[in-house]
Amino acid sequence: MANTLYVRHGRLHYFVREILKRLRVPATHASKIGDVLIAADLAGVEGEGVSRLPLFATRIRTGLVNPNPSIQVAHQEEATATIDGDNGMGHVVALRSMDLAIELAKQFGVSAVAARNSNDLGMAGYYARLALEEQMVGIVMSNAPPAMVPTYGKTPMLGENPLAIAIPAAEDAAPFVLDIATTGTSRHQLEDALNRGESIPSGLALDASGAMTQDPKAALEAMRLLPLGGAPLTGSHKGFGLALAIDIFCGIVSGGKFGRDLGGAEGTHHQVAGIGHFFIAVRLRAFGPWIKLRNQIKDMMRQLTGSPATGAPRVYYPGEAEFEIEQERRDNGIPIDPKTASGLEGLARQLDVHDSWKHLLEGRK
Amino acid sequence: MANTLYVRHGRLHYFVREILKRLRVPATHASKIGDVLIAADLAGVEGEGVSRLPLFATRIRTGLVNPNPSIQVAHQEEATATIDGDNGMGHVVALRSMDLAIELAKQFGVSAVAARNSNDLGMAGYYARLALEEQMVGIVMSNAPPAMVPTYGKTPMLGENPLAIAIPAAEDAAPFVLDIATTGTSRHQLEDALNRGESIPSGLALDASGAMTQDPKAALEAMRLLPLGGAPLTGSHKGFGLALAIDIFCGIVSGGKFGRDLGGAEGTHHQVAGIGHFFIAVRLRAFGPWIKLRNQIKDMMRQLTGSPATGAPRVYYPGEAEFEIEQERRDNGIPIDPKTASGLEGLARQLDVHDSWKHLLEGRK
Repeated sequence: MANTLYVRHGRLHYFVREILKRLRVPATHASKIGDVLIAADLAGVEGEGVSRLPLFATRIRTGLVNPNPSIQVAHQEEATATIDGDNGMGHVVALRSMDLAIELAKQFGVSAVAARNSNDLGMAGYYARLALEEQMVGIVMSNAPPAMVPTYGKTPMLGENPLAIAIPAAEDAAPFVLDIATTGTSRHQLEDALNRGESIPSGLALDASGAMTQDPKAALEAMRLLPLGGAPLTGSHKGFGLALAIDIFCGIVSGGKFGRDLGGAEGTHHQVAGIGHFFIAVRLRAFGPWIKLRNQIKDMMRQLTGSPATGAPRVYYPGEAEFEIEQERRDNGIPIDPKTASGLEGLARQLDVHDSWKHLLEGRK
Repeated sequence: MANTLYVRHGRLHYFVREILKRLRVPATHASKIGDVLIAADLAGVEGEGVSRLPLFATRIRTGLVNPNPSIQVAHQEEATATIDGDNGMGHVVALRSMDLAIELAKQFGVSAVAARNSNDLGMAGYYARLALEEQMVGIVMSNAPPAMVPTYGKTPMLGENPLAIAIPAAEDAAPFVLDIATTGTSRHQLEDALNRGESIPSGLALDASGAMTQDPKAALEAMRLLPLGGAPLTGSHKGFGLALAIDIFCGIVSGGKFGRDLGGAEGTHHQVAGIGHFFIAVRLRAFGPWIKLRNQIKDMMRQLTGSPATGAPRVYYPGEAEFEIEQERRDNGIPIDPKTASGLEGLARQLDVHDSWKHLLEGRK
């Protein structure tokens, strides 16, 4: 079991569905959650993929996440709405919210939807991308349990608070998908560095004493990440300010929890997360003919990717690398590292869906 | 003339108006431009204040900026609109656009307005703040002439592309105003470092050969600023991605110029700038009772400013320092450094408004 498995994405999706259904997640929800997790694994964003399933299972089984939420539109007024997620899985709450944002933007050209009482939504860029089919820009934000130290602070007061922006592209090109934490690094990147036995650059994290550290282990134990920008002189107030604005949208405007009150898988383990999200959709055809916009976006990306590069074969725009990884993994399978494989197999055993695990292994690449 | 002058902000506003009227800017426009410039000087953002006046004058006199534009709503559809700035001063184009965004958000809860054929708008946060009186969040973006090198790139392909977000606060508190370039540093900060004879931190700028530099002079000559985040391992793709998204909104969605085609005061001097902007307003009362939101925002800011600090007396939230500087400068005057003073005096002489200059000096603090 020491080698990386390569599994077919369709079979992995089936496995995720079977696990979730055993956890009393309705089949339609299980399928949607599977879509988001598999999309993350296909894009090479393993930290938001099936590796999270054992943790989600624990939180559902201990009653911290509602497997069968009644997600409601708490309030709707013209192009804006507020969704109450009923403490459901963040993936289904976010999907419902983004769908509504897209519907409202069809009608009004632009829309804003806040969601509260939710949980970790995984790869934020997934929901932003849903806007692309309608030639809309999708913007997604989420708050998260405390992990970021403010500029000049030493206590975690905000989360990694992600921001995703997706912009439609020509049919034959990778869409622009920016999907970033507002910290300089993330828990997942620190775990990666630790697993590879590497140190991390200065300017990303503090240790438990509040001093800058380059040791990923010390950084993970302390979880005092610095804002994007690193130090005050290199612009950390920018990452801090973005994270704070995101928390105000997702936590306060939504009517949910904010700041240090957020819990969840990554923070206070034995507490309901109370995470919130915020979604904006902008219908591009309200501003100009789609063909013209599409061609100019294409032209812009060509200018960038054709510009002189250093330290890499060429310049990539956001989303391009993930798009290439996805094409490759659709053909050659999704890599499942031994630790993730062992977690998934354990889950299959506990939930008595070992057949699905065997089915997954039989289809391996 | 070697000392810093301290002048009353009201008299400085009068001086700006007189200069602009001589340049055939209509009186109402001159007054509005004065508002924005003086607001920047009051907030301590001198790089966007009256120090820019000689440059604006040159661009108007050489026909590169239209002093009396006919700003038009080129297209309006539900909660979205596109403004054509007729190559007017960016300040008046941005004001007109933000006013429209606020009107549309009153009606629809959220709005998006793109503006093209504009020029440098100065302090972006000024326009974002206009939303606050209506209990709205204001979001302002602008593109700018090439100055930012993409992640793994070595040629400037995007501008410093600012992003501003203003969020209303309680009446007695400084509002949240984030106003940031998506580069790690800015031309103005480099000029400051040069004037003080200081070096700059690593991770902010390249020199003309494409190597990282800590010499502000070399950085200014090359104008190859790195994206917020600095190096690839510390998240420079995040600043790059934000700048690119902003250029797509401001340059492409608006129907204007984008990427390397932008000119202007800071780029290709003898070229029409073709700058564009993008404005979003979000009416908070569409999401919940204002009093509750206001109290929670206040609570959040208290938690942050009361959290343990290191390297500074306490944690500040975005906009707070500028708010304090403004109170102080309203009482004690706006400092005008000798270089700026000499530029303004020269302008007064050229445009034959020396009386206004004398009037300004007589009122000095």
